[in-house]
Amino acid sequence: MKKTSFRTEKDSLGQKTISQDVYYGVQTVRALENFPITEIPVHKELILALAEVKKAAAMANMHTGMLPETIGEAIVSAAEEVIEGKLLDQFVVDSIQGGAGTSINMNMNEVLANRALEILGKERGEYNFCSPNTHVNMSQSTNDTIPTALKIASYRMAQELITTLKRLEEELLKKEAEFQDVLKMGRTHLQDAVPILLGQEFSAYSEVVGRDIKRIKQAAEAMLTVNIGATAVGTGLNAKPEYIEKAVTQLSAQLGVKLHSAKNLVDGTQNTDAYTALSAALKVLAMNMSKICNDLRLMVSGPMTGLQEIILPAKQPGSSIMPGKVNPVMIEVVNQVAFQVAGNDQSICMASEAGQFELNVMGPVIIFNLLQSLKIMDNGLDVFTRYAVSGIEANVEKCREYVEESYGIITALNPHLGYETAAKVVKQAIETGLTIKEICKAHDLLSEKELDTILDPNEMTTPGIAGNEFLVNK
Amino acid sequence: MKKTSFRTEKDSLGQKTISQDVYYGVQTVRALENFPITEIPVHKELILALAEVKKAAAMANMHTGMLPETIGEAIVSAAEEVIEGKLLDQFVVDSIQGGAGTSINMNMNEVLANRALEILGKERGEYNFCSPNTHVNMSQSTNDTIPTALKIASYRMAQELITTLKRLEEELLKKEAEFQDVLKMGRTHLQDAVPILLGQEFSAYSEVVGRDIKRIKQAAEAMLTVNIGATAVGTGLNAKPEYIEKAVTQLSAQLGVKLHSAKNLVDGTQNTDAYTALSAALKVLAMNMSKICNDLRLMVSGPMTGLQEIILPAKQPGSSIMPGKVNPVMIEVVNQVAFQVAGNDQSICMASEAGQFELNVMGPVIIFNLLQSLKIMDNGLDVFTRYAVSGIEANVEKCREYVEESYGIITALNPHLGYETAAKVVKQAIETGLTIKEICKAHDLLSEKELDTILDPNEMTTPGIAGNEFLVNK
Amino acid sequence: MKKTSFRTEKDSLGQKTISQDVYYGVQTVRALENFPITEIPVHKELILALAEVKKAAAMANMHTGMLPETIGEAIVSAAEEVIEGKLLDQFVVDSIQGGAGTSINMNMNEVLANRALEILGKERGEYNFCSPNTHVNMSQSTNDTIPTALKIASYRMAQELITTLKRLEEELLKKEAEFQDVLKMGRTHLQDAVPILLGQEFSAYSEVVGRDIKRIKQAAEAMLTVNIGATAVGTGLNAKPEYIEKAVTQLSAQLGVKLHSAKNLVDGTQNTDAYTALSAALKVLAMNMSKICNDLRLMVSGPMTGLQEIILPAKQPGSSIMPGKVNPVMIEVVNQVAFQVAGNDQSICMASEAGQFELNVMGPVIIFNLLQSLKIMDNGLDVFTRYAVSGIEANVEKCREYVEESYGIITALNPHLGYETAAKVVKQAIETGLTIKEICKAHDLLSEKELDTILDPNEMTTPGIAGNEFLVNK
Amino acid sequence: MKKTSFRTEKDSLGQKTISQDVYYGVQTVRALENFPITEIPVHKELILALAEVKKAAAMANMHTGMLPETIGEAIVSAAEEVIEGKLLDQFVVDSIQGGAGTSINMNMNEVLANRALEILGKERGEYNFCSPNTHVNMSQSTNDTIPTALKIASYRMAQELITTLKRLEEELLKKEAEFQDVLKMGRTHLQDAVPILLGQEFSAYSEVVGRDIKRIKQAAEAMLTVNIGATAVGTGLNAKPEYIEKAVTQLSAQLGVKLHSAKNLVDGTQNTDAYTALSAALKVLAMNMSKICNDLRLMVSGPMTGLQEIILPAKQPGSSIMPGKVNPVMIEVVNQVAFQVAGNDQSICMASEAGQFELNVMGPVIIFNLLQSLKIMDNGLDVFTRYAVSGIEANVEKCREYVEESYGIITALNPHLGYETAAKVVKQAIETGLTIKEICKAHDLLSEKELDTILDPNEMTTPGIAGNEFLVNK
Repeated sequence: MKKTSFRTEKDSLGQKTISQDVYYGVQTVRALENFPITEIPVHKELILALAEVKKAAAMANMHTGMLPETIGEAIVSAAEEVIEGKLLDQFVVDSIQGGAGTSINMNMNEVLANRALEILGKERGEYNFCSPNTHVNMSQSTNDTIPTALKIASYRMAQELITTLKRLEEELLKKEAEFQDVLKMGRTHLQDAVPILLGQEFSAYSEVVGRDIKRIKQAAEAMLTVNIGATAVGTGLNAKPEYIEKAVTQLSAQLGVKLHSAKNLVDGTQNTDAYTALSAALKVLAMNMSKICNDLRLMVSGPMTGLQEIILPAKQPGSSIMPGKVNPVMIEVVNQVAFQVAGNDQSICMASEAGQFELNVMGPVIIFNLLQSLKIMDNGLDVFTRYAVSGIEANVEKCREYVEESYGIITALNPHLGYETAAKVVKQAIETGLTIKEICKAHDLLSEKELDTILDPNEMTTPGIAGNEFLVNK
Repeated sequence: MKKTSFRTEKDSLGQKTISQDVYYGVQTVRALENFPITEIPVHKELILALAEVKKAAAMANMHTGMLPETIGEAIVSAAEEVIEGKLLDQFVVDSIQGGAGTSINMNMNEVLANRALEILGKERGEYNFCSPNTHVNMSQSTNDTIPTALKIASYRMAQELITTLKRLEEELLKKEAEFQDVLKMGRTHLQDAVPILLGQEFSAYSEVVGRDIKRIKQAAEAMLTVNIGATAVGTGLNAKPEYIEKAVTQLSAQLGVKLHSAKNLVDGTQNTDAYTALSAALKVLAMNMSKICNDLRLMVSGPMTGLQEIILPAKQPGSSIMPGKVNPVMIEVVNQVAFQVAGNDQSICMASEAGQFELNVMGPVIIFNLLQSLKIMDNGLDVFTRYAVSGIEANVEKCREYVEESYGIITALNPHLGYETAAKVVKQAIETGLTIKEICKAHDLLSEKELDTILDPNEMTTPGIAGNEFLVNK
Repeated sequence: MKKTSFRTEKDSLGQKTISQDVYYGVQTVRALENFPITEIPVHKELILALAEVKKAAAMANMHTGMLPETIGEAIVSAAEEVIEGKLLDQFVVDSIQGGAGTSINMNMNEVLANRALEILGKERGEYNFCSPNTHVNMSQSTNDTIPTALKIASYRMAQELITTLKRLEEELLKKEAEFQDVLKMGRTHLQDAVPILLGQEFSAYSEVVGRDIKRIKQAAEAMLTVNIGATAVGTGLNAKPEYIEKAVTQLSAQLGVKLHSAKNLVDGTQNTDAYTALSAALKVLAMNMSKICNDLRLMVSGPMTGLQEIILPAKQPGSSIMPGKVNPVMIEVVNQVAFQVAGNDQSICMASEAGQFELNVMGPVIIFNLLQSLKIMDNGLDVFTRYAVSGIEANVEKCREYVEESYGIITALNPHLGYETAAKVVKQAIETGLTIKEICKAHDLLSEKELDTILDPNEMTTPGIAGNEFLVNK
Repeated sequence: MKKTSFRTEKDSLGQKTISQDVYYGVQTVRALENFPITEIPVHKELILALAEVKKAAAMANMHTGMLPETIGEAIVSAAEEVIEGKLLDQFVVDSIQGGAGTSINMNMNEVLANRALEILGKERGEYNFCSPNTHVNMSQSTNDTIPTALKIASYRMAQELITTLKRLEEELLKKEAEFQDVLKMGRTHLQDAVPILLGQEFSAYSEVVGRDIKRIKQAAEAMLTVNIGATAVGTGLNAKPEYIEKAVTQLSAQLGVKLHSAKNLVDGTQNTDAYTALSAALKVLAMNMSKICNDLRLMVSGPMTGLQEIILPAKQPGSSIMPGKVNPVMIEVVNQVAFQVAGNDQSICMASEAGQFELNVMGPVIIFNLLQSLKIMDNGLDVFTRYAVSGIEANVEKCREYVEESYGIITALNPHLGYETAAKVVKQAIETGLTIKEICKAHDLLSEKELDTILDPNEMTTPGIAGNEFLVNK
């Protein structure tokens, strides 16, 4: 068994003994001691984005001549390794932590410094050759690197979510087409209303997804405005203007996305409205998805004691005790994702409101929740689309039966009989068990021909007055 | 038409001309100018409770000899008039206001001072004889009178809510008894599960209401600890110990409820956890009621295209366009009350968190939401109980049909056949359209007698293994 | 005293005796009995918008020939009276009610029918001449008129809010200009950071308001797409296509705003994302405003025991017990408005999620909260702008004192000394009480001239490395 | 390198090839495919509690004679291994999942079955000897085992949190004693109010913690009522009465805690109010902690540009760019935990409200958030107590300076001069820069002796009228 060797590192508060096995240093170790909170590490997506920021900053610092090329190139190489997915186990600080992300930033600075030192042929910990603060963090502050990384990570994850949403929209449109002739009973207040097409319902679902895509796109756009170069409070102290310019163009080039420098860096540093707005868009989406899922779960309810208007593919045995039971689990999971996203939005809002003066120190809890919302919404809707929506089948016969059994078609008689007479007809129908048509004929209210035309349920699914011709002639 | 005359009042910021028609004074007028926010006045229940506080304070101030009897008695008389419901139109400040309730307190101080002046045979505004601050507010601060009044109002409204909840509980228990033989299909995941009694469902509803009563009672108990005498920051500056003692006993006597002085008045002044805890109990109740209402709306869904397991009394025509439609409006209103209470809780929590040092200045928004939650929950559940629950009827036939049609009874075969075989049986039943019994017999799995016993749905509604005797004998 | 006479009205549930003094009828009376919940009537803004809808519908029904001109013109006249602000006391139903707004719609239908009857020279209640359902509600449903009215009301109120926000933005920009030379200490974590200008802080505030304006504009745009003509479930049953077209153009003309008919009326009827998205934008605004208000309350804290960096105009005596106390009440009220809006958003989200199938029956609670949020945000920010922001003065001297006393300027030495050495300098400065400059000179780290340049706090408020020229020369 | 061998398992949906390396089976594999949502596995605490449930169930099934001893004992042994912390890497299903926890339950059933098979000398997958459903899950359903496990886990974690809260309370009480003579200025509205003792503030903090302990204890009590034996819908189908009794006593014995069987198992299965009530108690705690933390961050603000009334131990360098900066990170982390807990409560509430009929299928998201709230509150307050509270020192001199500089002491003159005269005095003092005493003397309002007594700030920190003796004599 390999013997672990140790190094000693110090910072302004004193020194710590650290295993030579790890790339992180004294400040990371302090963070581990200070913040054993969630036991969940920071989202990988943020780490990757932060490594991109560090690479761009090193490039920009070499560009302005502040950072010697040898050191700068070693830092760039180290950052690229992280970007490629290496060293990810070295990012160990907890998702919820005090200090506005300083521990995340220092964890990255320390890992990159130590990896750069190795690249430079030095030992880990020989920070006089390449220091986490002086070199890796040059021209930077937690207060500009972390928000910039969060914006990058959010933007990317939002794009993935949009892709997933588009697939969902397409699948719903396919179902709209597939179900365009499936007549069913519309329901309001869960009570029988008037006929509608199953396709019309799926069309409505696709529309709302379409609007959600637009809202998320708009909210994600705000992520392209970054505050790199703002340093501590947004004044750009210690960051040369040419550094700021270069850092943004470099980062844009790395990501293949056009970023903008916040025209007001003080604003860009203290305000968190870009995050609350994106989270709000996700919450709006979540509520919409939950509503659709509630509808679907009602439609699939049964098989014998529910509505059973649609049929879902079985994805797993539904019960550990009830044989043969199949539950709509791929829909239920989206409801739960929606509730989680709503709660996350709440945490983000309170954290955003708690910002004070030049900085919102509640950054970590914002990161934790915003990236989780993006991730679970993407993951949840992906499996929902693939395992549930795409396999939905209509129970055409059952749907039609409901239309035939219900009294909701009475509404079409309003223009012909007036609301008050129509109300009496339906009341009598219910009391006698006779059909609406039979009652109308018994009272000689309308002719057979008129009734056949007016009461055709298919006619009721598009605007217009069924039997308008009879009306005009009177 | 009567000519309005005016008086001039001044405070430390300057003077204002005020109509002689009104009892309130300069500070109320400032508040009207400053806070035209919701256009909803402060809850009447708070005004009544504050008048009780003012009466008790005046009594206590006379008791300690600080307040001359003539003035004190006039103030007491004025307060009693308010308590009797007079002058309520004089309490005009907005529900949401800056200043931690100072404007509410001063509105009351001014109205009482001017009414007391009249009683003393003076003109309104002659504050040298009876001053809103020096006499009416003697030994008091907004910071102790408003919290004390809020606690009194909350406590009283909580008691009314508890009475309403008890009526709801009773009504549910009546329905439990009424429906104790109504066999229906239990559902999990909105999918057919195993048989249950409708009475068992109503029993479960009554149980949760019972627990809510306990939780609200516990939370309301905290309202009995008041901080009257704490004055500005809880140190009791300017309030004699004997004043504090007398104010609390006097107030208790007035209300017929035993109040306690907070043993730590600093705590009693700055902390708002009694309100957040009561609001939390209301939110828990709200979620429970919403769940029950969701169930009832599902059960009453139809009449032809839903479950229609129960029937509700019609309370109003359901639609302006669809004749004969009746909707479960008395249930829907409770869902909405529940959502409102959940939102109110959110506002209260954020306001509570925003307290700083010796005082939570967000008091007005807490008052607005907490008393609204208490009121609408009481009102909503009252009409729900009277107009919906008490009139619920079971659709016994429909309920039984569901049991007979469904395959959920297969679960009872598990102990006899094992889960895996049972799963095969039910699958085959669904595929062939044959009954579970028929499949079992076809495969000679169990005898007719065994099947009759095991598959009796009534047996399934109590703990135990149906047909256990056959099992033992094997 | 006038003797009240009565009329008898009936609907499908039976008859009611109604005072001849009122314009509303039997269904409104049922709603009053059924829903004594909040005791707050529906927002006036919704009533006015609904009257606009009713007028447009009557015009469109005359256009298609469905509605006889005599009756139609009487309905239009009645609607115009409501639009002018008459009869508003006749809209009496509670803000929270079951039935998806049917009671609001019927309250309007009944008032307009009875007023139209008067105009036609008939008695109130003679519905055979002009019926609330058959004539006033012709081609309509609660499910299209109420959403359309809500969209109109929301749009208009959002425009007013935007106007208020623009005034706030302007006032903040004025303050930015006014304070552009006021050097103060930047703070992160409420701890001394590095110098900043007070004008930069107000600039950041104005930026976020600018973004909020954009977000609210975007969200309000969605209100221009209406579902009038969708009738019961969005299929347009009983509404002629030419009616739909005419209703929308007529309504646009009345309002002076270009409305669009939802291209998918089923979607337009069942989905509530336009409301959740507007509410979300309001919540984002609310969190931003609360953050700014928290900053301002910190800056104005004192006068002697707080930061006292700014001075606010006094708006009312701050305390009923502490003479001379002035509190930032015009700021506190905005914090409370913000908490209310956050809670309202919560209620709206839950109500939105609870929509089922063709309709969201939780409309009333959505209306109640959405319009309240718009109103109180507008009202709150209006008085905040006029009574607080516009009067803010800088305490220039105090601000400068903080800069001079603090150690935060050490950061400017990083590029010259490295982070680690700089950390030692500041530590020694704190321990010895000497200035940073003195320590640097004592250790001969930099020359007097270098230090004067590098440590000039004004230099620190723009991007760049103070004393970069010395660095280059080394 | 070891070659992986595979086995084939099947369930009612078909078969899957599974690595022989793992203990879980086909249904777990399906869950992994279906639910790649959060990428966070189920809380360890739930897994341990579920293993306890499985052990107790096996014991009870042997007790009733339903489960052969050989198989039963193997299951018990397997469960005990999990309880000891073995095999934890085999519990792989995602925290958010459809199916009400069926996948968690089946993951456990499969792991225990396969481990039991090994113990019995069989191969993994030979379920005819010991089946996940028939044997491990005997007399059980997801719907009783998962709620029972959640209650056990919640109860245990709540006890740990209570222990942590008691340590916090003690530490605050120590600080109360330590600071009982530290006079400081009380603040309301962040404005100078009247003197108070720092010890009084810490006393108030300890009181609220004390009440939180009580509230959490009460809420945790409800966790002791379990529904084991309720099986699918609470009717206890397939669970013998003597099984239910034995399972509860056995489980109580295992845990060393007295559990009760829900007297109404239908209620115990469908209702989730025990969780919402515990979560609500945690949210109330969270808001209280956040308020305290906000106060502490204000008190420690500075060092030169803030209040600096207290000093905190440094726990890590505060900034990656600003040397020497130390931030109150151990306090900030608690604010963030509080926001997280508030958001989690929101998710839990929505999930609870979404329960339908006999079961709340949103169980997994409730588990995820409730156990997270318990964990992070415990962890966060633990480090807060140890690293922040216990090390707080008072800046006695600074605190006294504030008292001496401020005008708040004017309030003590009210009883002597009346509010209106006192207001004039303080106004003049501020305008002239003279002290309150000097103004009083200049106007000959009170004697030097009277002023010395009345204006003694120490007197102001306890109830009573300073200089009452002078008042009496007048």
